Amino acid sequence: MVKIFGLHSIPSVQIGDNIGNLIVNAVRLHNVQIMPHDIFCVASKIVSVSEGRQVSLAEVVPSEQALKIHAQVPRKDARLIQLMLNETRYQDGSRLSITDGFIGGWMPNGMFLTSAGVDKLTSKSAILLPNDSDQSAGIIAQTIKKALGIDVSVIITDSEGRPDKRGATQIAIGLYGLTPVREENNRSHTKTSRAAETLCDLIAASAALEMGQRDAGIPVAVVSGLDYTYNTKARISDAIN
Amino acid sequence: MVKIFGLHSIPSVQIGDNIGNLIVNAVRLHNVQIMPHDIFCVASKIVSVSEGRQVSLAEVVPSEQALKIHAQVPRKDARLIQLMLNETRYQDGSRLSITDGFIGGWMPNGMFLTSAGVDKLTSKSAILLPNDSDQSAGIIAQTIKKALGIDVSVIITDSEGRPDKRGATQIAIGLYGLTPVREENNRSHTKTSRAAETLCDLIAASAALEMGQRDAGIPVAVVSGLDYTYNTKARISDAIN
Repeated sequence: MVKIFGLHSIPSVQIGDNIGNLIVNAVRLHNVQIMPHDIFCVASKIVSVSEGRQVSLAEVVPSEQALKIHAQVPRKDARLIQLMLNETRYQDGSRLSITDGFIGGWMPNGMFLTSAGVDKLTSKSAILLPNDSDQSAGIIAQTIKKALGIDVSVIITDSEGRPDKRGATQIAIGLYGLTPVREENNRSHTKTSRAAETLCDLIAASAALEMGQRDAGIPVAVVSGLDYTYNTKARISDAIN
Repeated sequence: MVKIFGLHSIPSVQIGDNIGNLIVNAVRLHNVQIMPHDIFCVASKIVSVSEGRQVSLAEVVPSEQALKIHAQVPRKDARLIQLMLNETRYQDGSRLSITDGFIGGWMPNGMFLTSAGVDKLTSKSAILLPNDSDQSAGIIAQTIKKALGIDVSVIITDSEGRPDKRGATQIAIGLYGLTPVREENNRSHTKTSRAAETLCDLIAASAALEMGQRDAGIPVAVVSGLDYTYNTKARISDAIN
């Protein structure tokens, strides 16, 4: 049996905060029992905020390319589009994909994310994804290990939708401690074939059941009791095509 | 807290089997405690098999359009492509989308599915999705209600991947008993905005943690303890753009 519970009392995160410490404090406050290999799912937004990934839009000057894309998708602020170009690391727009007013971006690590992971934070600011979400996950896991003496895994999560469905689900954008793709021999057919599952995304989605909507105030959930391969060398790139 | 557990001892499903009865038998055999509004996630494949949605490929004659698409994507059997055309209900291919050797299909209800939901079953046969997955879900829920006297929800699930990630996750293609999109006022900003979540897909993905890989032998999982809106009028189309 797998259990999922939200971690309450994580305070509003500020720049420079140590997310691992905030999690440990919340675990102690509520006397939550953490088991070896429990998986902490952490919303990318609080990680980004702690790492100072906020950008004041007043300081962003859109390039000609950004203005050109803005003309195609007028509802998207040209300065946000400039940040998307920056995040893909290709200023010519060749790593942005625009269809029916939707802008997706191919990240340097091969992930394809809505708006290249750029979110509006307030009317005057935006927030970018953590620079290296695997590294952020590792630091959080090591902080928890140091405080509680227990090996845990960490997944950094982000909201992502499907073009055909209303609303968003949640996927993994960085991780520490777990092999992100689950593969096993398919035993039901005579001929052995293989089926692979994006385990990290299944876990991120299940955590969202308790984390609730974006900004609902529960940015961390714990997935407990899952049988998976604990692997401190794993990276999100292991799950990327 | 949300709990997810796989339902063991569901036998290999045959055409004409009553899936609701097979579930009730497994619940009784293992003395599983079912709570009101538990959500049964059921792999579409066993529903399709029970409903006789297998197709012998020997009986499929590919049209000119199917052969034309086959020439574009040679690794896909032209007869499977013909079934995809049938499933989208547009023989001219206008509801299939072909990119980089990937074929996706827009279903009549607006869902976009890999291969229009057509899967190879054996070298000589294919399997199509249930004809009306909401209806299939409702029949299963009502069978469980009748046997156990408890209102439950049912989600029919299917494997679906993302273009950037290895492996598949699981989404909802039909449902009974739950409002599939979760929306709430966003409380963290001064200005009230709304964030929506595709709850049915989050539940389907979380069930996959216990159902395991396609054909792993656990085609039913139960999601228990989730606070959601029980709604017998809900349909998957409520979650479709």
